[in-house]
Amino acid sequence: MATATKVPTSPRRKANPHESNGSNGKRWVYRFNEADTVQEMLGGSWDKVRALLGGKGSGLADMTRTGLPVPPGFSVTTEACNAYLAGGNAFPGGMWEQVLESLAWVEEQTGKKLGDRSKPLLVSIRSGAKFSMPGMMDTVLNLGLNDSVAEGMIELTNDPRFVYDSYRRLIQMFGSVVMGIDDEPFEDFLTETKRSRGVKLDVELTAEDWKVVTERFKKIYRTSVDDDFPQDPFTQLALAIEAVFKSWNGRRAVDYRNAAHIPHDLGTAVNVQTMVFGNMGQDSGTGVAFTRNPSTGEKKLFGDYLMNAQGEDVVAGIRNPMPIATLAQENQAIFDQFNSVVQLLEKHYREMQDVEFTIEQGKLWMLQTRDGKRTARAQVRIAVEMVDEGLITKQEAVLRVSPDQVSQLLHPQFEIEAKATAMQEGRQVAKGVNASPGAAVGIAAFDADVAEKWGKAGKSVIMVRPETKPDDVHGMLASKGILTSHGGATSHAAVVARQFGVPCVCGAEALDIDLRARTFRVGNTVVHEGDTISIDGGVGEVFVGEIKRVDPDFARETYLRKLLNWADEFRRLGIYANADYPADARRARDYGAGGVGLCRTEHMFFQEERLPIVQAMILSEPNSDAEARELTKLQKFQHDDFYGIFKAMDGQPVIIRLLDPPLHEFMPDHEHLALRAAGLRLVGDRPNELTRIEELMVAVEGLREFNPMLGLRGTRLGIMRPELSKMQVRALFEAACQLVKEGVKVYPEIMVAVTNHANEVKFMRDLIVGVAAEVMEDMGVTLEYKVGSMIELPRAAITADQLAQYSEFFSFGTNDLTQTTFGISRDDAEGKFLLHYVEHGLLPENPFQVIDEDGVGYLIKLAVDRGRQTRPEIEVGICGEHGGDPKSIHFCHRAGLDYVSCSPFRVPVARLAAAHIALKEKGFKAKED
Amino acid sequence: MATATKVPTSPRRKANPHESNGSNGKRWVYRFNEADTVQEMLGGSWDKVRALLGGKGSGLADMTRTGLPVPPGFSVTTEACNAYLAGGNAFPGGMWEQVLESLAWVEEQTGKKLGDRSKPLLVSIRSGAKFSMPGMMDTVLNLGLNDSVAEGMIELTNDPRFVYDSYRRLIQMFGSVVMGIDDEPFEDFLTETKRSRGVKLDVELTAEDWKVVTERFKKIYRTSVDDDFPQDPFTQLALAIEAVFKSWNGRRAVDYRNAAHIPHDLGTAVNVQTMVFGNMGQDSGTGVAFTRNPSTGEKKLFGDYLMNAQGEDVVAGIRNPMPIATLAQENQAIFDQFNSVVQLLEKHYREMQDVEFTIEQGKLWMLQTRDGKRTARAQVRIAVEMVDEGLITKQEAVLRVSPDQVSQLLHPQFEIEAKATAMQEGRQVAKGVNASPGAAVGIAAFDADVAEKWGKAGKSVIMVRPETKPDDVHGMLASKGILTSHGGATSHAAVVARQFGVPCVCGAEALDIDLRARTFRVGNTVVHEGDTISIDGGVGEVFVGEIKRVDPDFARETYLRKLLNWADEFRRLGIYANADYPADARRARDYGAGGVGLCRTEHMFFQEERLPIVQAMILSEPNSDAEARELTKLQKFQHDDFYGIFKAMDGQPVIIRLLDPPLHEFMPDHEHLALRAAGLRLVGDRPNELTRIEELMVAVEGLREFNPMLGLRGTRLGIMRPELSKMQVRALFEAACQLVKEGVKVYPEIMVAVTNHANEVKFMRDLIVGVAAEVMEDMGVTLEYKVGSMIELPRAAITADQLAQYSEFFSFGTNDLTQTTFGISRDDAEGKFLLHYVEHGLLPENPFQVIDEDGVGYLIKLAVDRGRQTRPEIEVGICGEHGGDPKSIHFCHRAGLDYVSCSPFRVPVARLAAAHIALKEKGFKAKED
Repeated sequence: MATATKVPTSPRRKANPHESNGSNGKRWVYRFNEADTVQEMLGGSWDKVRALLGGKGSGLADMTRTGLPVPPGFSVTTEACNAYLAGGNAFPGGMWEQVLESLAWVEEQTGKKLGDRSKPLLVSIRSGAKFSMPGMMDTVLNLGLNDSVAEGMIELTNDPRFVYDSYRRLIQMFGSVVMGIDDEPFEDFLTETKRSRGVKLDVELTAEDWKVVTERFKKIYRTSVDDDFPQDPFTQLALAIEAVFKSWNGRRAVDYRNAAHIPHDLGTAVNVQTMVFGNMGQDSGTGVAFTRNPSTGEKKLFGDYLMNAQGEDVVAGIRNPMPIATLAQENQAIFDQFNSVVQLLEKHYREMQDVEFTIEQGKLWMLQTRDGKRTARAQVRIAVEMVDEGLITKQEAVLRVSPDQVSQLLHPQFEIEAKATAMQEGRQVAKGVNASPGAAVGIAAFDADVAEKWGKAGKSVIMVRPETKPDDVHGMLASKGILTSHGGATSHAAVVARQFGVPCVCGAEALDIDLRARTFRVGNTVVHEGDTISIDGGVGEVFVGEIKRVDPDFARETYLRKLLNWADEFRRLGIYANADYPADARRARDYGAGGVGLCRTEHMFFQEERLPIVQAMILSEPNSDAEARELTKLQKFQHDDFYGIFKAMDGQPVIIRLLDPPLHEFMPDHEHLALRAAGLRLVGDRPNELTRIEELMVAVEGLREFNPMLGLRGTRLGIMRPELSKMQVRALFEAACQLVKEGVKVYPEIMVAVTNHANEVKFMRDLIVGVAAEVMEDMGVTLEYKVGSMIELPRAAITADQLAQYSEFFSFGTNDLTQTTFGISRDDAEGKFLLHYVEHGLLPENPFQVIDEDGVGYLIKLAVDRGRQTRPEIEVGICGEHGGDPKSIHFCHRAGLDYVSCSPFRVPVARLAAAHIALKEKGFKAKED
Repeated sequence: MATATKVPTSPRRKANPHESNGSNGKRWVYRFNEADTVQEMLGGSWDKVRALLGGKGSGLADMTRTGLPVPPGFSVTTEACNAYLAGGNAFPGGMWEQVLESLAWVEEQTGKKLGDRSKPLLVSIRSGAKFSMPGMMDTVLNLGLNDSVAEGMIELTNDPRFVYDSYRRLIQMFGSVVMGIDDEPFEDFLTETKRSRGVKLDVELTAEDWKVVTERFKKIYRTSVDDDFPQDPFTQLALAIEAVFKSWNGRRAVDYRNAAHIPHDLGTAVNVQTMVFGNMGQDSGTGVAFTRNPSTGEKKLFGDYLMNAQGEDVVAGIRNPMPIATLAQENQAIFDQFNSVVQLLEKHYREMQDVEFTIEQGKLWMLQTRDGKRTARAQVRIAVEMVDEGLITKQEAVLRVSPDQVSQLLHPQFEIEAKATAMQEGRQVAKGVNASPGAAVGIAAFDADVAEKWGKAGKSVIMVRPETKPDDVHGMLASKGILTSHGGATSHAAVVARQFGVPCVCGAEALDIDLRARTFRVGNTVVHEGDTISIDGGVGEVFVGEIKRVDPDFARETYLRKLLNWADEFRRLGIYANADYPADARRARDYGAGGVGLCRTEHMFFQEERLPIVQAMILSEPNSDAEARELTKLQKFQHDDFYGIFKAMDGQPVIIRLLDPPLHEFMPDHEHLALRAAGLRLVGDRPNELTRIEELMVAVEGLREFNPMLGLRGTRLGIMRPELSKMQVRALFEAACQLVKEGVKVYPEIMVAVTNHANEVKFMRDLIVGVAAEVMEDMGVTLEYKVGSMIELPRAAITADQLAQYSEFFSFGTNDLTQTTFGISRDDAEGKFLLHYVEHGLLPENPFQVIDEDGVGYLIKLAVDRGRQTRPEIEVGICGEHGGDPKSIHFCHRAGLDYVSCSPFRVPVARLAAAHIALKEKGFKAKED
């Protein structure tokens, strides 16, 4: 599809026809040598310079200032972009004149002139926003070429092959990027040409071949746009700048910003820069490199380059490039110069740098520097090592690592034995580049739309492509893993996957992907779309079928542990873990939890050998001898449960919630019983069994609830079946007292759930205090303990001042509090309407993942305020799933909570998130802010 | 059981041994002739006089001041009672001396002396609290009698029969009231005596008989208390005063106060008054009377009297008394004097009076006056007629009638045909006194405990007793009706029943009640405990079996309609009704509703001919042709529904709620289908039917929800199935536009339910506005309408400022708001724990009956404030069941709501309650305040 923009007639030295209104003296364009001017104008803030000139433009200006070899050029500002978009796609007044002025300066610097066949200046046009959006925005190289200039250049260089190679690139890129022509006819013809010449690689084509290609490309252009490729370089320039401006609101850019939480109103700058040529023969080349390994974080130069190629050949992963280290063998002097330049850049920016460079006939040119994307593992290691190197402070290191990255680092891995078995079975079918770590299992999807569809439907998907393009991002984000057959560690797939923490294997060349048949083949193995595969992005391995995964080994994450210990110095929030079993409790401790914030006793009831006792207890009359008998049996089990957890948490508090769920959860299903009864009635030979089942049905019917979440549970149950509560409290205190005698430090906190009214808490408190006193006297032990309320109903939050009279702590059960505040049953809602709501913007976020500050958050703040009015020293925390969500943790900090409690696996994430908000409160800034 | 109080030795002229500390000059005792003194001391407030001297004491003092014939006496104050109870059951300092001083004044007035056999003074001791608690408190008559005084009196009166009758009464009353001796042995001996003498009535016994009874009563006393009946009159006096003080905290008094919402810290006064004797022969008598008919309110003297009897003979219903009108025949002069006294009293108090009087040997004495208890019907008529008579203002009249009374007045009645059938079938078994109106059906319970137990278990109970006593109140309150075989319109049963609006038939003498067998018999009919009976308290009829009841006829309630019209002048709140059908809407209008506050469209869907269409619609794919087909069928029905309601409410607003319940409510039950499928599989001859059912099961399973109340309903449904919403809106506007063309005034307000987020409201608002515009254009009609939100989830209340952006009105759905704020499913909770909670004080009230101000009320006030911040003119009301509850209506007024909407039957109640709170806000006081 061609864009609607009319090609203007040559605008050289004239006001641009798209101009919105007269110049008001505003600067829209800055030359690369004006870094100081701009920074001074913006009050010294480099951040503002980045915002105005974009990351790329400011980097080029900064490198120019530092005296590095940067081809001359200038940046059109982000403000100009915004003014263009706001003004109905017209250049703001004066902009075009400033472009021409700056161009004149470039011409002066280089001694060349745009469109002049005797001293031709070619330029690149590149986008560059404040935040890097790799591959998202559009680039045009070799701008300035036309038939006449091409002829002139051939005369000058005597290298028609280079000139036609450059010209055909310009026509394709300009056609594709500026005019919106499909790449396919260009690529098809190129492939066809190589096939007919019997060659495999572009570099094997001759000058004559490229000339033919160039002519054909002009034809393709003409057919698609219904106009000739513009021969006027100024028309090319104006249209290319417009195209970059417009690309800011293109779908792939918007998608990317949504995914990366980048605001939509920043705009992009446009960088116009003198072309240097990596495709001027075998003493020319181009490459990208990182100052440290972006996958592991190791302090060692990392990257790829290709000789006799232009930049996009490396990035797009079309040809497989060489590792940067081999450049030293190729040209030691260039390598040394390059190495010293990038080390300088890293020190200058105090961050790992991602640079682009070109070697033109043996001369090094730096085309870009920016903070390098990296894996979570690399991020952590780099941050920690930079502190050790004295480059940054601990605070900076902590803030540089995002909670999401910690969470990625703790991605699951394949189980060693399961993987070994898969190897023995010959299920490993390929190896590729270990582009983004983590083990993933999912069904193969061969395009982004299918991946997105299946992913949103809740399926685990691995997206498989020859290579990925910016248009594929929506599918990549919906996938659990990404697998490509082409491209290296800096290919689009690798960069995006690392950034979003999706496991990725790139360049697994053994895969023969057939997009039409929707299969890939490796030898005799054929994998169809929908088949399950497994990939390990940490080592680059590809398997057919499923491989069992295991949790990560936190103990071996040395850098992360060091970083989190620093985080602990900065955070104010305590981090507890939810743990129901001793093993959970031990893991929680390993991960750095300061206590158990929620121990749910009901899980203990579901265990196989206990369930019959639990059922018998339920069916007995409350306060009867039969009930007492069953409770005595249960008490033994409960004692052991509590003993184990208290012991594991020696010296730390353990918050134990008394039985919470409605009793029918422990009973068989009524419909199941009814069908069995019907069957027995029909056969008629087991009347006793029938009677038993019929009685059971009556009991189950009696317990049935229309809305169990709002039924007889928590404290209500504790009040209606006080002997059950007493049994739990007795078991708990007996275990605690026993441990005290054994020298263990036990800090039990007993939590009363589903509370609504202060009277309920008082009732349960009296019960607990009574039993505790009894047990302690019996066992001759004195024990400090607390009694508190779980705040999970709006009324409890609203009347927290009253509840606090009988509560030494509050714990917000934000799962249920969200359910009742919203009147939404999570089990029912997520599939039936909640996802639809989030997708269609009816809700900004899933409130079960991120605390809804306006509603649920209001109640939390109210409860904290009111609770502290009554009891200033009351301990307040949360124990819902939100306790492991960074945004929610930030909210908890701001709401003045004392701690958050989350699943043991989320404890490291929570430790970091808590440090971030504490540091931010003190004025430190995270990079993304 | 005997009380623990030790009998003091004669305390005459000495400080009482129970005295707590020395007198501090405080007045504890006032003579009946000190009305002016007390009133002046209390700043002129008669209300404070009542509080200090009690209703009875202040009435006696006031009558004395007015010059009416009141036997001299004095009141020990309520403060003395409180000081006694607070001081560990010891008289406050100085009280006993003041009693003796006042007694001396009485002796002076009467020329008699307590304990003096030559001029014996006998006194009555009566309790009297600020608020009348008839029969609740203790009374001792004839105090001052002992063996010596009795002999002296015989000498003086020459009437040994009268003296021994009086003496035996003292011994029994003193024994029972002061010493806690059971009445039974006394009554048994009296019955035995009458049997052995072959007489039926007390008056038939001779002087000698009474002497024997007196001696035997002394013996019973001695056996029970292990001490002699105290011969010292001062000891009698001190103990009797103490007994009255203590009775304030007796079970029956506490029960009564709880039921009547009387505070427990008021205390009771003790009135000591010269005895006059209605039992001094046939020219003596005693009676009670009302200045107007307490059942109908008719302005005509009403009451009973008995000649030759003491007061308790009338009240206790032991002998059947004579109507007051016959007194004129007996003694015209006394009747005239009596009539003029009571008319004076009514004018003086501007209230219908309930008086006690005694005729002693032809002389009239007034013993008490107080505001008379009455039926709701009488209350309304009296209030209205007193306005017409110029006695009170409209405001006073409105405030005198309580909302509960209006509700009683609208009690159901027997269906005329059902009753006629019952008559033909001979099921009417008795007639009695029509003591408290209303038709009741229930199972017979033969004592208060059984009645209470069954009543609390949710059964409809009619309590059947020979007569009731204050100890029975707890059972009476738990009953739907009361039936006694003895006693008249002023008996204990009648008075209590009228006050609490329980239908009651008294004195149905035909009933032969056997408390041991727990049956009653009438002729050959035997009714066992647990059998169903029906009574009509309005006409005094008793039936066996059930008779169908119908709603009351508001049109015929002339007085009430007049009163409510006055109420409408004073109230600020609008009163709307919840109406789902045209018939409801018409009734709502009849009852004075100003609009329809809630029209639930789902009820329309459940109708038989529509349900299959609804089900087919549900099973179709959203937005499919099949869905459209079924919706078109439904639209026709919906159009007619709306047409009918709008037409009935011509000129008034109608708030229509779009479909609310989850769709599975319209589907068959899964278990039922599973059983049918199992059966079909077994038989195997109807494979098509089996397939159909299996498909249905899959569909039902897909719709199943764990917590339907928190599931896909209301707006969520409207958003997920927008075509369904559009159909409803289209039907609604087509009906409305059609009516406009027919000249009807239609004010539709479309309500969006179960909202949480402003975006939901915006979505629905856009949908509604779009369809409305379409329909109005098609039909060429312009119509004013509103779109609003139902606030029934905490989050909606908290974010009301955001919701108000898209809402022209809010309607609080307090049923659901209470469910979610409390996290309590009403269906599940009431039987399982909520009643237990209320009974055991874990919740002060059932929050589904009375708005929980601390929790739910907080959210309502918050939402009103925030909603008005955004949209000051927003219309705000409630449409939950609380809209018909007076306390909740008062809250709504205070919270600044514009209207309440309730069931049509509650509209009159709501009109009155709304007037009350508006008048109270202006400083008017209701009687009970």
